[in-house]
Amino acid sequence: MTHFMSAWGCFGRVGAVGGHLSTAKRAWWVALVVAAMSAMSPLALAAGKAPAPARTWTLQDIAAAPQVTDLSISDDGRYALYIVRRGDLHANAKRSSLHWVDLSSGAQRPFAESAWLSGLQRIPHAAGWSLLADLGEGVQLYRVDGNGRLEPLHINRQVDYVGAGDEGTHAFGISDYGWAPDGNSYWYVARTSRRPDPRVVNPRYLPLSTRNGTGPIELRVRTGTEDVLVEQAEAGSAGFVRLEWQDQSSSLTYWTRVRKEDALEQRRWTRGVERVEVVDRQSAHHVPVRGARGPGGGVLGTMGFGTDRMLVETLPDGSKLDYGHAGFMLGDSRSSGAWLSPAGDIALVGTRYFDVPRYGLVRLARSGEMEELASAGSLTQCTVNFAFDAGVCVRQSMVSPPELVRFDPRNGQLTPVVSLAPDYVAIAPLRVVPRTWTNRAGYKASGFVVYPRHYQKGRKYPVILVTHGSDADERFVDAGFQWDYPVQAWAERGYFVLAINDPTVLDSAELRAAYAQWSAPGPLPIERVQDLIWLNGVDSFETAVDDLVGQGLVNAEQVGIAGYSRGSQMVNVVMTQSKVFRAASSGDGGYLEPSGYFSSTSSYRYVFGGSPYDPAAFANYRRLSPTFRVEMAAGPVLQQVASGSTSQFALHMALREHGVPSELVYYPNESHLFHQPQHRLLAMQENLDWFDFWLLGKEDTDPAKASQYQRWRQMRSEWHAATVGLR
Amino acid sequence: MTHFMSAWGCFGRVGAVGGHLSTAKRAWWVALVVAAMSAMSPLALAAGKAPAPARTWTLQDIAAAPQVTDLSISDDGRYALYIVRRGDLHANAKRSSLHWVDLSSGAQRPFAESAWLSGLQRIPHAAGWSLLADLGEGVQLYRVDGNGRLEPLHINRQVDYVGAGDEGTHAFGISDYGWAPDGNSYWYVARTSRRPDPRVVNPRYLPLSTRNGTGPIELRVRTGTEDVLVEQAEAGSAGFVRLEWQDQSSSLTYWTRVRKEDALEQRRWTRGVERVEVVDRQSAHHVPVRGARGPGGGVLGTMGFGTDRMLVETLPDGSKLDYGHAGFMLGDSRSSGAWLSPAGDIALVGTRYFDVPRYGLVRLARSGEMEELASAGSLTQCTVNFAFDAGVCVRQSMVSPPELVRFDPRNGQLTPVVSLAPDYVAIAPLRVVPRTWTNRAGYKASGFVVYPRHYQKGRKYPVILVTHGSDADERFVDAGFQWDYPVQAWAERGYFVLAINDPTVLDSAELRAAYAQWSAPGPLPIERVQDLIWLNGVDSFETAVDDLVGQGLVNAEQVGIAGYSRGSQMVNVVMTQSKVFRAASSGDGGYLEPSGYFSSTSSYRYVFGGSPYDPAAFANYRRLSPTFRVEMAAGPVLQQVASGSTSQFALHMALREHGVPSELVYYPNESHLFHQPQHRLLAMQENLDWFDFWLLGKEDTDPAKASQYQRWRQMRSEWHAATVGLR
Repeated sequence: MTHFMSAWGCFGRVGAVGGHLSTAKRAWWVALVVAAMSAMSPLALAAGKAPAPARTWTLQDIAAAPQVTDLSISDDGRYALYIVRRGDLHANAKRSSLHWVDLSSGAQRPFAESAWLSGLQRIPHAAGWSLLADLGEGVQLYRVDGNGRLEPLHINRQVDYVGAGDEGTHAFGISDYGWAPDGNSYWYVARTSRRPDPRVVNPRYLPLSTRNGTGPIELRVRTGTEDVLVEQAEAGSAGFVRLEWQDQSSSLTYWTRVRKEDALEQRRWTRGVERVEVVDRQSAHHVPVRGARGPGGGVLGTMGFGTDRMLVETLPDGSKLDYGHAGFMLGDSRSSGAWLSPAGDIALVGTRYFDVPRYGLVRLARSGEMEELASAGSLTQCTVNFAFDAGVCVRQSMVSPPELVRFDPRNGQLTPVVSLAPDYVAIAPLRVVPRTWTNRAGYKASGFVVYPRHYQKGRKYPVILVTHGSDADERFVDAGFQWDYPVQAWAERGYFVLAINDPTVLDSAELRAAYAQWSAPGPLPIERVQDLIWLNGVDSFETAVDDLVGQGLVNAEQVGIAGYSRGSQMVNVVMTQSKVFRAASSGDGGYLEPSGYFSSTSSYRYVFGGSPYDPAAFANYRRLSPTFRVEMAAGPVLQQVASGSTSQFALHMALREHGVPSELVYYPNESHLFHQPQHRLLAMQENLDWFDFWLLGKEDTDPAKASQYQRWRQMRSEWHAATVGLR
Repeated sequence: MTHFMSAWGCFGRVGAVGGHLSTAKRAWWVALVVAAMSAMSPLALAAGKAPAPARTWTLQDIAAAPQVTDLSISDDGRYALYIVRRGDLHANAKRSSLHWVDLSSGAQRPFAESAWLSGLQRIPHAAGWSLLADLGEGVQLYRVDGNGRLEPLHINRQVDYVGAGDEGTHAFGISDYGWAPDGNSYWYVARTSRRPDPRVVNPRYLPLSTRNGTGPIELRVRTGTEDVLVEQAEAGSAGFVRLEWQDQSSSLTYWTRVRKEDALEQRRWTRGVERVEVVDRQSAHHVPVRGARGPGGGVLGTMGFGTDRMLVETLPDGSKLDYGHAGFMLGDSRSSGAWLSPAGDIALVGTRYFDVPRYGLVRLARSGEMEELASAGSLTQCTVNFAFDAGVCVRQSMVSPPELVRFDPRNGQLTPVVSLAPDYVAIAPLRVVPRTWTNRAGYKASGFVVYPRHYQKGRKYPVILVTHGSDADERFVDAGFQWDYPVQAWAERGYFVLAINDPTVLDSAELRAAYAQWSAPGPLPIERVQDLIWLNGVDSFETAVDDLVGQGLVNAEQVGIAGYSRGSQMVNVVMTQSKVFRAASSGDGGYLEPSGYFSSTSSYRYVFGGSPYDPAAFANYRRLSPTFRVEMAAGPVLQQVASGSTSQFALHMALREHGVPSELVYYPNESHLFHQPQHRLLAMQENLDWFDFWLLGKEDTDPAKASQYQRWRQMRSEWHAATVGLR
């Protein structure tokens, strides 16, 4: 479970396919930049200065890039609060800041800054907001007043130290909460601390995590001064998710994991009733998606596969209201939520598009009419006021920094307000073209072609393919996708970059069946599961590269590939199946390698049919598992890793044993997504050096790197000697 | 290299065989207790009190047991200094103390106490001693004056944090040193610190060690105020060992490891010469043993195998001086050193006996006469003054706490001085009988039978075999042998304990060839190497148990086995090869398990013929590697581990997958030999609970252990269901 395939997230990561919208998108982008620059340089404009000339990308820009994590609108629709999280290179840590913005003028005021801000919520039927903040007592619950002051609302002194996949370890008193609609109650998740046990008894996974906290996680409900313990979960579990109030504040449902049975249960706490009751149950590998409510009084959902997908509302009487073709999916955790107007006649629903991978908002009327609020770029973090007469979103794309936009939910009209990352507006945008590739098996993969900065027609460039499953999409410098692969810096130094997704699980019934069979018995032969989930992607990646080679854009001798986590699976498989890629960078992965069997038995048994030491499973490992195929490796592999698993180490050592250049770089004090900006700089620089060396034969003359190049040259000589005449 | 088989120590661990000396030994023991109690209870005697009645062993006694680490005698032979290291249960750490003792009266004075004291040396041609101590500035070099004051002699402010196999991490400025015979110069090993690199590039072993220090290790020579850097070695390497001055202080030889070539080199630094020169070279798997000088002006050595071993001195003219049959080996790192009288006519040499495993001192005369200073128990830490007219040793045995004895080197006469662990003299000694067992293949294994405290003839007892290669020997509560297996507490609660060694490598030429082939090519088939190094031990262990069963001492249904490191290899092999043992405890091991291949390729290839994923090597793994044989497991296995390797985890998960009871308990903040006394208590208690449950069906009623027994009962039901009818 360490690497990539959380039971809560596996099927959330679906790919997307679709057509081209580049013209529309670029037009929108130009409008956005103009609006953003005028709105965002009040000081420069006031001083009568011309805007600074556009500049180019640096690694520092990537490591410091902003992410808007929270956005909330006032009851009267006149202003909004948002939280932005950025890498602070000087402090070598992430920092969050809370900002107030006037939605009509775009005027802003900074409210607070902290190592941790999250969970920004309007308090129902009251003035002001609440949020989770670390103001020196660990993360606790605060109220924000109109002047930006944070007043303690709930302090739990029993803080525990807890980490997350993309964060270092922080002290948490309260880690999550949610107001009941009546504004009188809130549920909250409290951490408790224990004197740490010096032992770990019967761990289920390796390497051991030291970031789980010590004491049980408690779900509690607070109403005035009354505080009720609903349930406890063990430290290190996923705790409680998808919490929903029913009937104002009389009951609360939530999902939790039943460890022993490897299942998820939905439970209901009812005020005044002592025991919680179980209301639903699912396999732990299936994430229950809540259907949004539609304007017909029913539940919204999509049906069909591939180009046949439709949006339908299942009405209370069982009949269907058809909204027509749907180029999107609902319920993706990265898209916005859903709202219904007080009269129930209009619904707003967050979407994730398949054609060009992006996030949007559609407006549905009882008539069956469906309207998109934006036809290009992404709308994320959207929210609507209680009166349903004002809304705000973050608009962004691969080339457009996040910008605040407001909209009228009744007519869907979008108006730019202000850039949320003005320092990034000054960077001259790169040329990014969305594409869909259909592979030899007929499966589609979506993605983008990033052009080198000074692209000249007729010249052939090196290319690096970057992949991480499904998040090559229209968000701005998303570390969740590009990790420590410096996409923008590669474009600046003359590389094409292919940002590409896996074929989406919603593309065919057979693909969906294969994904389901990743963690449960099913009808497909093991070979077919391997083909559909992994080799299918190799086919897509080769197709995308062939396309650029065929167009004369890239040099077929200078093709690299990079990916972390799910992307690392694909990179390792690609390098031991295909001869198209000449060098690779594989980030903090290792799933599919044999020594992972004992940490991930419940999925390996469906992928390989048993243990790597079982002769009956040998052929299945030999067919897919990269460590079993090192003698077929096409070229050098760099692994940058945080988890330090034997899977990563064994692949490295097996490659070296067979004379294949391999470099394994551990960052022992990092998270799966590196959270320390200085480490991100180091790792990005390693990637620049690695591909420059292996694809272009170029070396950085910095004397501090002498031992690096000595090592790499030595490996190159051995590799050339071993492969002479083979290529 | 993490687990068990350091290149520097592998062949140092040899076993021993021999006859019975129990009568002589027990007589000596009784004399010792009487002497020790009279010498050691001056307060009690002064107050006219009778000695307290003898008491029994507790786990606390074992966790706090003393180890005399250093002993040094004054020039005039009148007094000695010694360092004793003990577990401090209150501080949950080890503490060292330095003591002065008058050798004629036994009167003692405490001189100093610290988290770290070591390296006690007489300063040649000067008054006083020097030692390494941590007095708050990290470990540094101090001079001890006659009043017990420690004055700084050499402080290196660049401390680095470094750990060791049986210690936590300490700050070291200077980690080793040695005076030149003229007393004007000393070599020393200085640590240097660096800002830690956040990365580890291409590690050679997993799991990563965080205890290696950061900066290079420096070998330096100090003469007055002149300080010369001889050589640097990388942090985490073994650095510099076996340093010897030549020609007073004009040159210095030492061994160091050449990483790239996996070799050891002896180098010589010569005063005034800029470059060090290479003077010898050995495979990294062969530890060069320095031959002691004999009274004939030649070099001492033993020849032959088994009962044919002889002590001979090779004289300068090549002829041999024969001292007769030698029941011992020379050069064992646990035995005392060697001294030659100023006239060169008498040599004193530290020995390690094969018959009853113990350490001694023999006195050799030019006439070819050889005399043992003690015929039972061990003499360790022996040292002689420069004038060669006075010497001191620590005398101890499995049942006798360390006692200081003095002797006259000219006639070999031993005189008890004082007990060095008076609180342990109060414990009523257990009955311990040395034995040698000859297995079905004719190989001998030495060891001891520890009787249950209130043994009654005719009653049958449960038995636990404890093994760790070669150190079941006559030392008192040696944690290096018994680890967290509470040998004494088992005897107190009615268990027999078999403390047993592997057949010794010096027992036959074929066994020595097999050991050599563990790390280098050789003539034996792989099966024969497996048989001799591992299955031979299984045979010996079965023989020893059969012997006790045959004598009617133990119940064949209640036989357990425990061992750590090398012992863990044997335990895991035994449990998947033999049906004699019904429950096991396996400590911080994992060598022989398949995922260790990539950390220990250079030895696995000789044991298994290749990678565990290579079908050609499958039969060899299946023949020996416990993870490949879990379905043949004879019973429950507890693993208590500090290193957290995938080898340990995979064996645990594979056993569970096949329904075999298995418990894996990590102590993430421990060293290979646990150094925190509270953790040792916990681990020992787990071992008591584990064998009581699986061998006797007994449970501790402590409610805090409810979940432990629930888990074990569940595993027992599954196991009984799975094995019904099989046993």
